[in-house]
Amino acid sequence: MAQRLKPLLDKVLVQKVMPMTKSAAGIFLPETAAARVNEGIVLATGPGKRTLDGSLIPVSVKEGDKVLLPEFGGITVKLEEDKTKETSYHLYRDDEILGILQDK
Amino acid sequence: MAQRLKPLLDKVLVQKVMPMTKSAAGIFLPETAAARVNEGIVLATGPGKRTLDGSLIPVSVKEGDKVLLPEFGGITVKLEEDKTKETSYHLYRDDEILGILQDK
Amino acid sequence: MAQRLKPLLDKVLVQKVMPMTKSAAGIFLPETAAARVNEGIVLATGPGKRTLDGSLIPVSVKEGDKVLLPEFGGITVKLEEDKTKETSYHLYRDDEILGILQDK
Amino acid sequence: MAQRLKPLLDKVLVQKVMPMTKSAAGIFLPETAAARVNEGIVLATGPGKRTLDGSLIPVSVKEGDKVLLPEFGGITVKLEEDKTKETSYHLYRDDEILGILQDK
Amino acid sequence: MAQRLKPLLDKVLVQKVMPMTKSAAGIFLPETAAARVNEGIVLATGPGKRTLDGSLIPVSVKEGDKVLLPEFGGITVKLEEDKTKETSYHLYRDDEILGILQDK
Amino acid sequence: MAQRLKPLLDKVLVQKVMPMTKSAAGIFLPETAAARVNEGIVLATGPGKRTLDGSLIPVSVKEGDKVLLPEFGGITVKLEEDKTKETSYHLYRDDEILGILQDK
Amino acid sequence: MAQRLKPLLDKVLVQKVMPMTKSAAGIFLPETAAARVNEGIVLATGPGKRTLDGSLIPVSVKEGDKVLLPEFGGITVKLEEDKTKETSYHLYRDDEILGILQDK
Repeated sequence: MAQRLKPLLDKVLVQKVMPMTKSAAGIFLPETAAARVNEGIVLATGPGKRTLDGSLIPVSVKEGDKVLLPEFGGITVKLEEDKTKETSYHLYRDDEILGILQDK
Repeated sequence: MAQRLKPLLDKVLVQKVMPMTKSAAGIFLPETAAARVNEGIVLATGPGKRTLDGSLIPVSVKEGDKVLLPEFGGITVKLEEDKTKETSYHLYRDDEILGILQDK
Repeated sequence: MAQRLKPLLDKVLVQKVMPMTKSAAGIFLPETAAARVNEGIVLATGPGKRTLDGSLIPVSVKEGDKVLLPEFGGITVKLEEDKTKETSYHLYRDDEILGILQDK
Repeated sequence: MAQRLKPLLDKVLVQKVMPMTKSAAGIFLPETAAARVNEGIVLATGPGKRTLDGSLIPVSVKEGDKVLLPEFGGITVKLEEDKTKETSYHLYRDDEILGILQDK
Repeated sequence: MAQRLKPLLDKVLVQKVMPMTKSAAGIFLPETAAARVNEGIVLATGPGKRTLDGSLIPVSVKEGDKVLLPEFGGITVKLEEDKTKETSYHLYRDDEILGILQDK
Repeated sequence: MAQRLKPLLDKVLVQKVMPMTKSAAGIFLPETAAARVNEGIVLATGPGKRTLDGSLIPVSVKEGDKVLLPEFGGITVKLEEDKTKETSYHLYRDDEILGILQDK
Repeated sequence: MAQRLKPLLDKVLVQKVMPMTKSAAGIFLPETAAARVNEGIVLATGPGKRTLDGSLIPVSVKEGDKVLLPEFGGITVKLEEDKTKETSYHLYRDDEILGILQDK
């Protein structure tokens, strides 16, 4: 997807990270409630928004950032060629993204 | 249409791309649900919007760009002479367009 | 009307063009649903709007332009002396007008 | 009224012009539906609005202009001393006024 | 009240003028419907509002001005010590005041 | 409270002044309807808000000012340690405060 | 959490402080109504928001500040690895935070 879609303005393309949950038998199962997925990887970003005097405000995340996403908001995107895949792509405005997740 | 309609300000004229779907018999059929069509070709763009100090912010797409469109929004346009044609033309504001689709 | 009404600010005076429809007998009939008329001729424009620092943004259409109009919006105007006429005059804000129609 | 009320900022004082209608017997009668009156004479204007950097944007009409008024909007004003009079005074913001009517 | 309350920003302190109405017996009576009172005297004004670049836009009325007030809007103010008085004090934002009334 | 809470931006910490009411027997009683309390003392203020170009607009009241408050608006604040006290603290945005009350 | 989540723009990461309440038997019990918790510790802040001319307005609180929080607003955040913990993390926009609490 990141090779195909170049977001515009302050839009950010994010792939949600499906958390694994351990079953009673100890097997990891993907969670069913997609609504609970609130982490994602930034695949691509737009160049940023223009200010009132025409200069550019770049977006505050970059490709590869692991980000914390809001429970609501964002637009789900799916290309024709991806319609059978399970992966979940989303576009967020830069100021909708809550924060960057860092490895400890 | 592109030869006829010159969009104003930050408006972008887009022709939606009808996806083909393979039938059980292997024949490609156009999808019926037009709402699911979310790809288009930019036919023409306006010059851009004016900022508060009067300078111009050009639109972020250009003629020929293949773009990803939002599920809602945009205005369907039809000229008198095109009323029998099946093609579907739409005007979007530049900031409604989600991204540019690139060939792999 | 254009000789009589001078629009203010970014308002644009437009006369709608009634499309002709061919009847079964081959005679052209005016369409009844005025709502479907979406082309017009610019009769007069205001000087434009002021920006926040007081300078002028001129309107993006000019007298004589054939324009594509939105399905909704605009204000219908009628002067006392025109009340028996069938012609239809409308005022649009410059940014409501969708585009300029060019001859092929 | 114009001698008494000095409008503030971008407010414009307008006296509506009652149109005459010919009765079946050939006598001109004032129209009853005041809502249909959409022409007026500018009696006085405010100095204009301040922009964000403090400079003044003057109003676009001047005393004596015959103006086309919107169907809705404006504030009806009546001074104590005028309460028995039939004349109808109104205050409009400059950008509510549709256009200036010129003599042919 | 004017000695006690110093309005802030673009707020204006106004005392409404109760109009007198002649009764059938020829005696002037105060009108009962306070809502119909639309004239007032400016008792005090704030220094004005700040523009986006921090400079001051002074209010457009001054102490002593007789002003025309809108039918709705404004805040009625009453100090503890005035609770038995009949006078009626109001705070308006500068841009709510319709105009200044001048003596003929 | 003023020693403990430092308001941010254009927020103002106010302690409402409970008015006393004389009973039939001549004894002053505190009013029960807190909603009617519209006077307060400024205990602390924030530094002010930033304008669009980053400079500071200071608040228009200062510690110790006796202020007239609007009937609605403001946020009631209570710290853990004050939960048994009767005093009533409130935070207002600077532009919500109606005016400064001066001693005669 | 503070080591893991870096807030963006003007967002502030806050850990709510659970107040203790003395039971009849003299034992301190945590309050059940989380809605009543209105104090928190700032764990991390974003760099601030951009003004219209592109310069930065830093947030008005810093790591370690004890802050007074509004009753409503803010977003509760929970990372996968913290889902069994009782601690409560929240993101507020800088201008939602009411004030800084200082030690007496």
